[in-house]
This record gives sequence, structure tokens and C-alpha cells, in this order.
Amino acid sequence: MKLALIGCGLLGGSVAAAWRRAGRISEVVAYDRDPARLGQGLARGIVDHAAASAAEAMRGADVIVLATPVGAMAALFAELARHAHADAVITDVGSTKAGVIAQASAALGARSARFVPAHPIAGGALPGVEHASADLFAERWVVLTPQDDTDAGALQWVESSWRESGATVERMSAPEHDRIFAAVSHLPHLLAFALVDLIAAQPDGARKLQFAGAGFRDFSRIAASDPVMWRDVALANGPALGAELAAFRRQLDAVQAAVDRGDGEALRQLFERASRVRREQRFGAAISEGYGD
Amino acid sequence: MKLALIGCGLLGGSVAAAWRRAGRISEVVAYDRDPARLGQGLARGIVDHAAASAAEAMRGADVIVLATPVGAMAALFAELARHAHADAVITDVGSTKAGVIAQASAALGARSARFVPAHPIAGGALPGVEHASADLFAERWVVLTPQDDTDAGALQWVESSWRESGATVERMSAPEHDRIFAAVSHLPHLLAFALVDLIAAQPDGARKLQFAGAGFRDFSRIAASDPVMWRDVALANGPALGAELAAFRRQLDAVQAAVDRGDGEALRQLFERASRVRREQRFGAAISEGYGD
Repeated sequence: MKLALIGCGLLGGSVAAAWRRAGRISEVVAYDRDPARLGQGLARGIVDHAAASAAEAMRGADVIVLATPVGAMAALFAELARHAHADAVITDVGSTKAGVIAQASAALGARSARFVPAHPIAGGALPGVEHASADLFAERWVVLTPQDDTDAGALQWVESSWRESGATVERMSAPEHDRIFAAVSHLPHLLAFALVDLIAAQPDGARKLQFAGAGFRDFSRIAASDPVMWRDVALANGPALGAELAAFRRQLDAVQAAVDRGDGEALRQLFERASRVRREQRFGAAISEGYGD
Repeated sequence: MKLALIGCGLLGGSVAAAWRRAGRISEVVAYDRDPARLGQGLARGIVDHAAASAAEAMRGADVIVLATPVGAMAALFAELARHAHADAVITDVGSTKAGVIAQASAALGARSARFVPAHPIAGGALPGVEHASADLFAERWVVLTPQDDTDAGALQWVESSWRESGATVERMSAPEHDRIFAAVSHLPHLLAFALVDLIAAQPDGARKLQFAGAGFRDFSRIAASDPVMWRDVALANGPALGAELAAFRRQLDAVQAAVDRGDGEALRQLFERASRVRREQRFGAAISEGYGD
């Protein structure tokens, strides 16, 4: 099995390494806009051949993985329509799903049945293919959002590849995926970016940052994520993210009113409910420890 | 030197242990509403004598440390006015300062000159005197907010005690303290409580929490802080916190507008500015790693 990897970063490189180790693929041809990344992929033995274009990488591949920011995918689906083998399995690692599926449909028509939309919920403290690892997906969630017309064989192949890479696979609809990750991933990132920027830009921002405690430093670590990747996520998941943000702003209106009128009981009840979530361990067993997922 | 410790938790117990090890005090009499905590303090050798009331602990003490939630301090200043020795040094460990100073003034009158308002920016992963440590303040900030009439000898004594406990001491005005910590401590906590409560309470909240990534889990750790302590902080620092929260809500209004109109460039610029803060290491050297500071 020959894999075409489009986008040779931490996530893409790790997919290639994990699927090769699991025996799902035997050859990797990669393309990246940045030739330095291809060089690093070759040097690490993750990539066997560097292609001069996405089209060249796609030609003759059995499996094609799109591992770019989601903003770059529309153009890649157009390339796929022209250059990919009709039987090739196509999949991705994007953080949003409904928009990517719509782009695949628009560019590929009926052939979009070969596209298996996927979102591995994994990342790492450090970016780049130099930190890619076949272990990145062990005990992590991978969410698949197949459509009614998704080809059963393609879906089965992608699902097995993830399972044999150690991941816990969950299928759900694309709208549910986008709603869930708007709430537990995209919105927290947006809030962290917004808070860190607000404080740093204040006239006494430098003085304030000097005394930043653990909580603020957590926000700043979340806000250190890649700006372009997150811009693309915010745009691609605009409707779901906008809805969660609107709900959060209504929540903050109520918090502001409680602070302003000195309503200690309302605040205590809110804090109490929130503090129970972690104590009661309501999170899933498969986790995502990485930043920028 | 005989120390009266009012409130026998992680912070209070650590003050007693640190100041004793530094040779600043030689005897500790403690009072806590919860007798179990006094028992733990005695068992650990941090407390020499358990008092049956705050008044009993205060009588005859050379130094009195208020280490309760700030909401309990007004009543304690009233006790101090009746029971503390006129020459006793009085200090606290509260997270807000202007409100505590006003309470001290109201209860103590001219004797409030002996009160040295202090805020050690330290905490621990685990609460309670059983986790208290003389090392808790090493390389941590301690902010002192003396008034114009604060007694120079009392101020000097408290400042030296903190320095000899390994802390980095900074003096500033109480309003500046409250503004800084509203921004870099109280507001992040409020946002974390608000987000975790919002998501957990949604109809599909349980399903969403299953897929919580690193960012949301950071929020939930911040939101696991003590609800009563944070209610008191939000009430005591209402004006400064309300102002920072209002500024943040305006920031979110702009973010929502950018998401809704799909303004990728505005979002990218915001994310880029925020992501630089951590890369450029703009935080102070003395840090606070603890939660619930």
C-alpha cells in the first residue's frame, strides 16, 4: 500500500509512522509547501519519496491523507479530483468536519464516497515532523464522521488503520463532532487567545504579566497554539463555534450581574457546580494531552 | 516570638512552618473553626497549642496571622480590637487587599497601623494543613500593600519574615494589587468556572466532556478550586474584577463579530498577538505554580 501524505507536520508524519508500523502501508510519498519539512521527513525515515507537487504525490497512491490546516483542503480536493486514482482511499486529520465534507462533495461529486473524514484528537507539546511519533495516537480518540454514502470498504480500511495504531475510534455525525469540539476545544482556545491578548495589551499589561499565577499561565500555554491553524478552525467551524461563544457570553452576562450586585450565593453555586466536574471524573478514558488539538 | 494563627489550612500552616524554620517565631497557638484541622496541625508539629476560640489564640500573641477566606476577616478584626495586645504585629494572607484594609480600619481605628496587609502568591496542588510546607514560599511572590500610616517596625518585621522564608517581596498599593490580581488570577478563575459549568450543564454535556482535550482539562483544573474561597474573592474584589470582566466581555463581543462575519485576518492577528506572550517569556521570574492562589 502506497500512502500519499499531503502536509508533512507533526500529525501527518505521525500518521505515516503509525500506519507503517502497524503494517497498513509500506511506502510513503509526501508533499509539503515547505521543502524543509520534506527533508526532515526523509531524514527521519518517515517519508520515502518527496514529491514536487501535491498532484505528483497523489498519482498512483492507494491512500491519500490530507494533513494540512483545514483552510488548505478545498484546493487539495480539486487536485484530488484530477489526479487521484478512482479507487484511492482518501482521508484527513482536520479539526472540523462539516465544512471539509462539503468541500469534498463539491470537488469530488460521487467520488467523495471514497473520502473518510477523520479527526485524531492528538497533538504534542512540540510541532513539526521532527517530533512525529508512531506512538502519538496510543489511547487517544480518533473521531470518524462518515456520510450515508461513504464507501464501506474505505471506511473499514481507515478505521482498522487507526485501531491498529492504538487509537480508540468513535463514529459520530459531522454536525455532532463540530458541536462537541466547538465546546470542549475550539471555545477554550478562543477564550485563552482573547484573555491573554486583552491583558498583555493593557497599559499596565507588562506589570500584570509579571505576577501571572498558575491559572493565567495555563491560559497562555493554550494561547501559544498555532495562529493559522486556529484561524482556519474558527472559520471552518464558524456556526457551531459562534453558537457556543454566544452561549458563553450569555453565561458571562449573568456572572457580571452577580459580581456587580455582590450576589455571593449565585457565585458560590456556580463555582460549586463547576468544581464538581473534575472531582467527579466526568471525562472520557481516552484522552488528549496534547496542545493545539 | 509567639504566633497566633487564625485559620489552620495549607497557607496558614505553611506560614507558621516557614517562619519558625527561619527563626522568626518560636511558638504557635492556632485556632480554626474546624477542630480536625487543629488536630492535624498539632500532629504535624506545626501548631504547639490549639485554642478554643480566635480570642483565646490572639491573647498574648506577638504576631497574629489571619489565614482564613477573606469573607471571615471582618469579624476577626473586631475580635482583634478587643483581644489582641496593642503592640502585636497583625498580618494576613488574603487574595484581595483594599477590602481587607478597609475592614481593618473600621474595626481597629488608629491601631490598624499595626496591620501589614500581605498576599503570598503561592498555593499547592492539594489543600489542607496536612500538605503545609516551610518550602511553599521559596521563589514565590509575596505582595505587601502597606498604607501611609502603616507602622514601619511592623512592616519591616513582616517583610523580613517573608524574605527569610525564601519569598520575593514586592510592595505596591492595594488598588494596584487588586487590579493586577483581578486580571491575572481572579478573572481566569471566573472564566474557567463559567465555561466548565456552561458545558457540563448542556443537554449533551456528558457526551461533550467525554472528548475534552488538554485545553478544557486545564480549565477544569482551575475550576476545581475552592468555591467558598473564590466566592469571597469575587465579592471582596468586586469593583476591580467587575471592570476586568467588562473589558473581557467587550473583547469577546469583537471576537464573536469576527467569527460571525468570517474575518480570518482579524482572528489571525488576535491569535498571533496572544501566542507571542508565552514565546517571549514576559512573565516574572518569581512564579506561582499552585492552583487556587
